[in-house]
Amino acid sequence: MSIQKPSLPKGTRDFGPAQMVRRNYILDTIKATFRLFGYQQLETPSMENLSVLTGKYGDEGDQLLFKILNSGDFLKKVKGEDLGKGAAHVLPKVAEKGLRYDLTVPFARYVVMNRNDITFPFKRYQIQPVWRADRPQKGRYREFYQCDADVVGTDSLICETEILLMIRRVFAALGLNNYDIKINNRKILTGISEVIGEPGKEGELCVAIDKLDKIGWEKVQEELAQRGFEGKSIQKLTPIIDLKGDNNEKLAYLKDFLAESEEGLKGVSELEEVFTILAEFGENQEHVDFDVVLARGLSYYTGAIFEVKVNHVSIGSVSGGGRYDNLTGVFGLEGVSGVGFSFGVDRIYDVLDELGLFPEDDMHSSSVMIGYFDEKGRDYGLKVLNSLRKAGLSAEIYPDAAKVKKQFNYADKKQIPYVMMIGDNEIAEHKVALKNLKTGEQEMHTLEEAIGIIKAS
Amino acid sequence: MSIQKPSLPKGTRDFGPAQMVRRNYILDTIKATFRLFGYQQLETPSMENLSVLTGKYGDEGDQLLFKILNSGDFLKKVKGEDLGKGAAHVLPKVAEKGLRYDLTVPFARYVVMNRNDITFPFKRYQIQPVWRADRPQKGRYREFYQCDADVVGTDSLICETEILLMIRRVFAALGLNNYDIKINNRKILTGISEVIGEPGKEGELCVAIDKLDKIGWEKVQEELAQRGFEGKSIQKLTPIIDLKGDNNEKLAYLKDFLAESEEGLKGVSELEEVFTILAEFGENQEHVDFDVVLARGLSYYTGAIFEVKVNHVSIGSVSGGGRYDNLTGVFGLEGVSGVGFSFGVDRIYDVLDELGLFPEDDMHSSSVMIGYFDEKGRDYGLKVLNSLRKAGLSAEIYPDAAKVKKQFNYADKKQIPYVMMIGDNEIAEHKVALKNLKTGEQEMHTLEEAIGIIKAS
Repeated sequence: MSIQKPSLPKGTRDFGPAQMVRRNYILDTIKATFRLFGYQQLETPSMENLSVLTGKYGDEGDQLLFKILNSGDFLKKVKGEDLGKGAAHVLPKVAEKGLRYDLTVPFARYVVMNRNDITFPFKRYQIQPVWRADRPQKGRYREFYQCDADVVGTDSLICETEILLMIRRVFAALGLNNYDIKINNRKILTGISEVIGEPGKEGELCVAIDKLDKIGWEKVQEELAQRGFEGKSIQKLTPIIDLKGDNNEKLAYLKDFLAESEEGLKGVSELEEVFTILAEFGENQEHVDFDVVLARGLSYYTGAIFEVKVNHVSIGSVSGGGRYDNLTGVFGLEGVSGVGFSFGVDRIYDVLDELGLFPEDDMHSSSVMIGYFDEKGRDYGLKVLNSLRKAGLSAEIYPDAAKVKKQFNYADKKQIPYVMMIGDNEIAEHKVALKNLKTGEQEMHTLEEAIGIIKAS
Repeated sequence: MSIQKPSLPKGTRDFGPAQMVRRNYILDTIKATFRLFGYQQLETPSMENLSVLTGKYGDEGDQLLFKILNSGDFLKKVKGEDLGKGAAHVLPKVAEKGLRYDLTVPFARYVVMNRNDITFPFKRYQIQPVWRADRPQKGRYREFYQCDADVVGTDSLICETEILLMIRRVFAALGLNNYDIKINNRKILTGISEVIGEPGKEGELCVAIDKLDKIGWEKVQEELAQRGFEGKSIQKLTPIIDLKGDNNEKLAYLKDFLAESEEGLKGVSELEEVFTILAEFGENQEHVDFDVVLARGLSYYTGAIFEVKVNHVSIGSVSGGGRYDNLTGVFGLEGVSGVGFSFGVDRIYDVLDELGLFPEDDMHSSSVMIGYFDEKGRDYGLKVLNSLRKAGLSAEIYPDAAKVKKQFNYADKKQIPYVMMIGDNEIAEHKVALKNLKTGEQEMHTLEEAIGIIKAS
């Protein structure tokens, strides 16, 4: 074995102790909310058969799938003439499996494979890494966590409303309060394309309108024209783009605007029902913003569409989702309606970091460290240590009789708040000297007193 | 997109809600213990550069690494003539990355890359999946979780002793009490090979002796002979193989047996020190069994060796580890001694399942479900639901006004212990009818009373 300077694959990261504490803080908050709402956890394998993954994410997605080389002699199906036919031709001969690209397709596969054992409606949450061979850049990684909750097997709009409640609960728990949950309905977009005179083109309308925030209305008009929308159709969109007012005012306008579209009116009425259910919960519409140009470009949404934006931070969009009516159809199970959403954990991490919202008590390290000068101190310290842990306190002993400064340095760097140094006095008096590293105060206590002080701090 | 019957890659598994609850029960118990002992969490990427992984696990390990096909045109470095040279020749041209094979090598890489920021001694735990292209068989998977704790940067034997304490704490918390923590020391094995007249052959001695449980002493003697051990050397081993008695008696015998081996005596004295420290902790030697033929075949152990066996179950060995003196040397950082161990989560799961030791309250689903007959009931139910969650109870409402039987069926299958059906009476009286699904009892209560009953149950 030669000596190497090790490195990480590009687009991947280690999460050291300080980062793990912060990530767990976010994930624990989200998990607690999912559970409070009756969602149950699922985990699927990191690898899926390429037949399950391919064709589900569009051509670009297929390119971004990480493929796993077949084990053993991966060349056994490759002939000389195959090489000239290119990578796409050779791929199925050398790779059968790929890494999970999102949590939605594996979830659909799980539902189909376990349809006879699952109690529907099935409320599941899933928190696992996914992999994409994207070009790495700031805030975009090749391995990152997704954090999804979905209900399948019901079209009840209670589910949509509960998504609003879950998002608000998580954000409140994380101390985030300047954000908007944008909500729209795919049927409204369908209705709009009908009433402007471009029926059946809501897909293209979505793709173009989705860019409104980034490129502005003028450029969106150009794109629509390029996509074959007529000038007078595009003109008819203007009041929609300019739409102002509170949720009820916008709904009222849309009802009028979409009067000729049955589908569009259905979208409006679904959205109204969500607001009605919200009121029945005894909850207000705070943070909830009906955004008629929210499209999210994803063709599989059929009803509600959500997106959460945190205001005044560099990375805005931290959560999104929607209702789909045919998630499992591609695997042969038709008619399963569902609605789901996803928290972007990495982005929430960056937002909390940017806003300074992580709790201060960060390292989640031991509550107390025992130090000592000599073997006699160690022996006494080990018994104290055992008692501290039996009292439920995370505790450790410095493993060597090192210089006192070194021992304190260790506690300091690990952000351990208390140190007990064991010397002859402490042993003789059957007490411990408890030093608070933040204040620098040190006092002699009985062990019971010291445990009480540490627990109360 | 054509319709497919989806399947899972062989050797991989989904973990549905019931399994996740049980897995989390095990992992939470282990995590709590690691934290109590001052260990901090680390996560490393699923992918590592093949240069980091290759050559660390022996030839067989290299074969079992899952390799990831380079993104884009993976054939661009492959020429026609390469094909004839075989898979091993082509591999480095088509794959640069592989999936994590264990947690030890990524940990060593992390330590080396972050040596200037880490506070030593560094106590880390890591719980993540690993992947091996093993032939799948009962109890052996291609994706499985490892659960490691290591301390690096100290050779204090307090660390070895704390491993014994952590194992005992985890097993006690899981209700496991018929098991042995076998402990040995690599230096004792070195000493034995010296005093039987085969110095320097402790590696081969370990490999052969490691099979004692499986193939018996007779076959081990044959294997030793094949490996070039002389007959009289093998004869000298007999009293070691037959060694009986408690830990102190065995240590006394070994001191005598190894009198001529400095290294062997050092091993004995390290083991004695571990027992001394255990006593200083105020702890007895329960479950701890000095096993002079424990070898674990792993060449990188240099001091203590551990293995935990649960008695009277089909899968015995559920945890193991040891001390190593040169884990990071291969990455250019010499002289970092460490000791670590690993819990086999899948095996512990199977053992608890076999022994019926999982807690009964299994599904970790909602504590209460609200049902209703009509829209009026739903409206009232939604307010009740909101109050239940605000009181911290996991709760859900059946999303549709389905038949009562269907609603109860759902609660039953999800093992939800309580149901509140909302009818006109409940609304008129401002009460809820709380049904205990286990006993079948149903009583009217105020909401506050009902919350109290559910919380107390």
